[in-house]
Amino acid sequence: MSGNTLGKLFCVTSFGESHGPAIGCVVDGCPPGLPISAEEIQIELDRRKPGTSRHVTQRREPDEVEILSGVFEGVTTGTPIALLIRNQDQRSRDYGNIAETFRPGHADYEYWQKYGIRDYRGGGRSSARETAVRVAAGAIARKWLQERYGVVIRGFMSQLGPIRIPFESWDEVLRNPFFAPNAGIVPQLEAYMDELRKSGDSIGARIDVVATGVPVGWGEPVYDRLDADIAYAMMGINAVKGVEIGAGFECVTQHGTEHSDEMTPEGYLTNNAGGVLGGISSGQDIIVSMAVKPTSSIRLDRRSIDKQGNPVIVNTHGRHDPCVGIRATPIAEAMLAIVLMDHALRHRAQCGDVTTETPRIERLAPQGVQRVPPPRA
Amino acid sequence: MSGNTLGKLFCVTSFGESHGPAIGCVVDGCPPGLPISAEEIQIELDRRKPGTSRHVTQRREPDEVEILSGVFEGVTTGTPIALLIRNQDQRSRDYGNIAETFRPGHADYEYWQKYGIRDYRGGGRSSARETAVRVAAGAIARKWLQERYGVVIRGFMSQLGPIRIPFESWDEVLRNPFFAPNAGIVPQLEAYMDELRKSGDSIGARIDVVATGVPVGWGEPVYDRLDADIAYAMMGINAVKGVEIGAGFECVTQHGTEHSDEMTPEGYLTNNAGGVLGGISSGQDIIVSMAVKPTSSIRLDRRSIDKQGNPVIVNTHGRHDPCVGIRATPIAEAMLAIVLMDHALRHRAQCGDVTTETPRIERLAPQGVQRVPPPRA
Amino acid sequence: MSGNTLGKLFCVTSFGESHGPAIGCVVDGCPPGLPISAEEIQIELDRRKPGTSRHVTQRREPDEVEILSGVFEGVTTGTPIALLIRNQDQRSRDYGNIAETFRPGHADYEYWQKYGIRDYRGGGRSSARETAVRVAAGAIARKWLQERYGVVIRGFMSQLGPIRIPFESWDEVLRNPFFAPNAGIVPQLEAYMDELRKSGDSIGARIDVVATGVPVGWGEPVYDRLDADIAYAMMGINAVKGVEIGAGFECVTQHGTEHSDEMTPEGYLTNNAGGVLGGISSGQDIIVSMAVKPTSSIRLDRRSIDKQGNPVIVNTHGRHDPCVGIRATPIAEAMLAIVLMDHALRHRAQCGDVTTETPRIERLAPQGVQRVPPPRA
Amino acid sequence: MSGNTLGKLFCVTSFGESHGPAIGCVVDGCPPGLPISAEEIQIELDRRKPGTSRHVTQRREPDEVEILSGVFEGVTTGTPIALLIRNQDQRSRDYGNIAETFRPGHADYEYWQKYGIRDYRGGGRSSARETAVRVAAGAIARKWLQERYGVVIRGFMSQLGPIRIPFESWDEVLRNPFFAPNAGIVPQLEAYMDELRKSGDSIGARIDVVATGVPVGWGEPVYDRLDADIAYAMMGINAVKGVEIGAGFECVTQHGTEHSDEMTPEGYLTNNAGGVLGGISSGQDIIVSMAVKPTSSIRLDRRSIDKQGNPVIVNTHGRHDPCVGIRATPIAEAMLAIVLMDHALRHRAQCGDVTTETPRIERLAPQGVQRVPPPRA
Repeated sequence: MSGNTLGKLFCVTSFGESHGPAIGCVVDGCPPGLPISAEEIQIELDRRKPGTSRHVTQRREPDEVEILSGVFEGVTTGTPIALLIRNQDQRSRDYGNIAETFRPGHADYEYWQKYGIRDYRGGGRSSARETAVRVAAGAIARKWLQERYGVVIRGFMSQLGPIRIPFESWDEVLRNPFFAPNAGIVPQLEAYMDELRKSGDSIGARIDVVATGVPVGWGEPVYDRLDADIAYAMMGINAVKGVEIGAGFECVTQHGTEHSDEMTPEGYLTNNAGGVLGGISSGQDIIVSMAVKPTSSIRLDRRSIDKQGNPVIVNTHGRHDPCVGIRATPIAEAMLAIVLMDHALRHRAQCGDVTTETPRIERLAPQGVQRVPPPRA
Repeated sequence: MSGNTLGKLFCVTSFGESHGPAIGCVVDGCPPGLPISAEEIQIELDRRKPGTSRHVTQRREPDEVEILSGVFEGVTTGTPIALLIRNQDQRSRDYGNIAETFRPGHADYEYWQKYGIRDYRGGGRSSARETAVRVAAGAIARKWLQERYGVVIRGFMSQLGPIRIPFESWDEVLRNPFFAPNAGIVPQLEAYMDELRKSGDSIGARIDVVATGVPVGWGEPVYDRLDADIAYAMMGINAVKGVEIGAGFECVTQHGTEHSDEMTPEGYLTNNAGGVLGGISSGQDIIVSMAVKPTSSIRLDRRSIDKQGNPVIVNTHGRHDPCVGIRATPIAEAMLAIVLMDHALRHRAQCGDVTTETPRIERLAPQGVQRVPPPRA
Repeated sequence: MSGNTLGKLFCVTSFGESHGPAIGCVVDGCPPGLPISAEEIQIELDRRKPGTSRHVTQRREPDEVEILSGVFEGVTTGTPIALLIRNQDQRSRDYGNIAETFRPGHADYEYWQKYGIRDYRGGGRSSARETAVRVAAGAIARKWLQERYGVVIRGFMSQLGPIRIPFESWDEVLRNPFFAPNAGIVPQLEAYMDELRKSGDSIGARIDVVATGVPVGWGEPVYDRLDADIAYAMMGINAVKGVEIGAGFECVTQHGTEHSDEMTPEGYLTNNAGGVLGGISSGQDIIVSMAVKPTSSIRLDRRSIDKQGNPVIVNTHGRHDPCVGIRATPIAEAMLAIVLMDHALRHRAQCGDVTTETPRIERLAPQGVQRVPPPRA
Repeated sequence: MSGNTLGKLFCVTSFGESHGPAIGCVVDGCPPGLPISAEEIQIELDRRKPGTSRHVTQRREPDEVEILSGVFEGVTTGTPIALLIRNQDQRSRDYGNIAETFRPGHADYEYWQKYGIRDYRGGGRSSARETAVRVAAGAIARKWLQERYGVVIRGFMSQLGPIRIPFESWDEVLRNPFFAPNAGIVPQLEAYMDELRKSGDSIGARIDVVATGVPVGWGEPVYDRLDADIAYAMMGINAVKGVEIGAGFECVTQHGTEHSDEMTPEGYLTNNAGGVLGGISSGQDIIVSMAVKPTSSIRLDRRSIDKQGNPVIVNTHGRHDPCVGIRATPIAEAMLAIVLMDHALRHRAQCGDVTTETPRIERLAPQGVQRVPPPRA
């Protein structure tokens, strides 16, 4: 299968360039009978869309989604669901000057050498604009997971550059443009971003995502493990350079007695595994963390080469996010939703008949939020 | 496709349980004409096999591989290559006592709840024993990548629990049982492990893998990015909880001016990208780092439950690696080789005709080793 | 992968219902650098579109295609090509009366029982309207196969109900609405169809497709044989109930001395194999034949049941093809093109390096047309 | 996925050459909890194995199967099931003389030109010997389909060269070496074969396969239709040149009033559809027919070329089936079983929750056998 399809049974096939006529996707394999509307998908898209605060790109894209197929009288029919988002604000003139050069940190040189041709307008296919279709497809997966299994998927920013953001509450995430789970720290984030914008530079971030309510048993070892597919999905988000499940890199210095989560009839005592053991969900919260690199499009001068291999100086004006991590939270949630739904269907295919007498245990703590994310001292 | 096949065009389908009659795999899609022998594959297997030092499990498995098909008169024919490794040292009696309980940190509970049945002997399918077949399949991929493109894939241990291991030279990696790239630190590692073994506990580790010589252009965005597939493959190794490409989580605190790798006609000035941009190889070294959790099988008492959900105390005697990270290096190399070969074929399928006039640039430094791994202050 | 994607490397993902807002597809994996335009695709669509003669459905669909992505400055970029065709002439009122009943010979009952929901308007997803997107995607494959390998794909009607249509010339195929390769027989076909329309009944047909210029070596045995994938693609066309390669069912009564095609340095002496041996193209013409069943939508009364299982009488007015075989030729050509292109890429992936000294032989006859289709006495 | 894996969720990956050390397969995706033993699989293998009568090849292969994994304490565990069959009777010397030439009607020339290398011993990978593993894998699918859904899959020879074999009873199929469903005709078949063997020539055959008890709803349109996947599987059997579902090519001359199967509350009145409508099973018997070409290995002289392209005369002694169709019945049954099981799982994945109030109807006739195969006047 070529590279633009995500999932084995719940399949999202994406298309579209940043400055072409449209972006969109085909979602194949969705179970029939799910009530879904363009309005519900729009709610998710609006969380990711540009221009919502002064800290993100000012490109004006309403990101209005149209459902072209697969939904009849308000519910999914089991046939492919095509979603279409027309591009509106294509200021290609911003990009004419980069047609002959390669922006460092972008995929310009790589696309050019791979394909021998390159849609240079706004990064073309490599633009983060494509992630809108992931959010749209993810909205369908979230709805189904919630309705069918009560799974809730939520993300937040846990670090902006040097500023760690202690988790306080999920409610707060919805109230600020950073997806920060902490009201008190927002002024500090705003000040940092205002300063950064002035400097012309950009900064990285860390995003955490948690899925609550995933039943034990999802994941297809030994290769298509749940955590392996999550890592694939998250590393496949533009600008992500690292992925952790549960304790993540902290496990390097942990002892077995500290890391492995003890079990009691009342539930697990800890969740260093991040909800996945042996590639299969354990019934605990799925906890994922990822590193988002700083935007490569900055106003400051950078050395590069042109198509002939001559040295050039590149700086990028146009309209860009100084921290792409800010808008990454809804994308990461969507990717997790798509992976989980795909595995729910895969599990049902092979093991739909399985029952055991063993009670299902979950996290011990009633909320579990306290342990999210794992402490980073 | 079910979960035991790795790769889209270079496909490794794995089978076998820790204490069943055999483990093995079918490698489908290998180009014809590659000289390969059981002896060559054996060399790689011997690097991973148990019992090679006092710091790893003492299970005695010669891991002798037999080629059942796909090779004729010493070269691959283009048909499926079946590799078979008979299990020799199956002391199932070690495991009878865990048939009714779940070992914390293992996948016992998850396999049981997913499948409703469980081969409890030595972890069955979830055992790290299965990774031998990855190493065997990886040996074929390494050979082809080396012959066809000059790609060299090498890994090393960069941290053992609290002990960071500064990179000194590749040569050293081959001379100690830890795959440590540093002779001076080996006594410290040995002392640490001896102490650990006595305590009955286990410890985590960090492994780095580097591929040199990968040409620009491999990777199939937007989903099957080279880095996404690497993350999938690495997170799919038993006990891995985190994966980084290039700067990895360090990018969270980096500015754009620091992170994005400037280009000159002589080459890239840095490699924070770890050799992948926009999901496509850049021509620089591919640099991957992963966290391996501490072994869950320890002699110390742990709380757990049994099949009826009653509380029990579990401790694991048998023969186990106190640090599974020690034997992870050849596995990680093999996984990277398989992913790279798969992408080499995928790239050739779609873009086999592409040429550009733009010169191919690579890393600036003649060796590049200095920047491997990225500094972790 | 869910069921609406065709191909492994050249992947066509289809969407859309007969009476929804639009139909279309995403073509992923197309090599970059292929010049293609909406106008070129439109030419193929116009060959299949309804309303072109009195012998086909009178639904008025311009079938105007829009390219949404993947083409920049007139050439493919290697990224997904999205094709969109808006539905124009949706007279859903024609179908209100079938919402509660199942039309015999259609998939109404099957869709209902499978999905528990059904877009009854014009057959929804099961409508032959969906085949327009196959023709559109096939246009891209044809162009590439022609440019890159000189492959030419042509089909014709070889039988309409009881009337066998002897092959005379390819030129004639383009000059009549039946795709009949024989001018003299056209009046007979017209008279037959006029009579049939009056009767309110429908009729079957046989379609043959030939690909000339396919090099030796395409096909991935032992399962993904070229002929197996062709059979899959052709049987996957609405209303097809049988597929033959080369001699087809005639081989049942053939002896080995008659069937197996002798080879000489000048070429093969016959082509009973239909251009495929052992699942791999032989260098001869690929010859495929298929049976298209009579349209199930007829004006005459038929017994059926309703959703509650009660007996009902069904007859279908609306606008229908009395012989769906008439418009099947361009669809069959498109499906063959898509399969061949997919296999061209698959072959290049694994065997892109292979060369032999053995001369490539092809069909002996300079044109080969004489033997197309295999004689049916 | 490379070409040696059959199925999307129930996946059979095949390996092995005719005269290599072994053949076998990995069956991935089998639901856990199915009781299965080597003995049960052996029963199926014995039906296909060579040397069972004077009318088939005299190669002596016990075809003894070993289960290497995936089965624990007599039941499947949900992990990959590896099946191994060692080759015993490899008289490679029979084939030394064909190493430099290409046997007409075989895939020798095609393998050589595709792969640039060729295991010439007994046809290597292209040998029908590989079909033993399909039968072995199919035995698992048959068992599961029978246990879970009551599906019964049975095949028979319906024509041997010029001799049509009227269907009389399933019982008879088991009592003669031809799988003929008619006792009276067996002497005629034996006489025909004896004569044929003397002549040194070979002959084609027609095989029919029927699956009874398949519930309505299996199949994944619009591409992965049940009939499309059956056509793929059947055309993928060595020597098959044509596939029909239900009325097959007879539908060319049928009217809609004759072809489309009327429905009543008591069931369908006919089964021209062969149990599949719109690519989805209808609840009626699945009826498949296929044409098997005459064996290409014959003792009579045939013109061909050698590796240098020079003309040669080829005749094949060795040990061969004069009618490969005779042993094709168990293979066709196995392939149908594998496809059906794969679709059962795929259907469950997407539509496992679906229910309707509409009663399920099946074939009207209590046995349905009367209409099998469709009449061929």
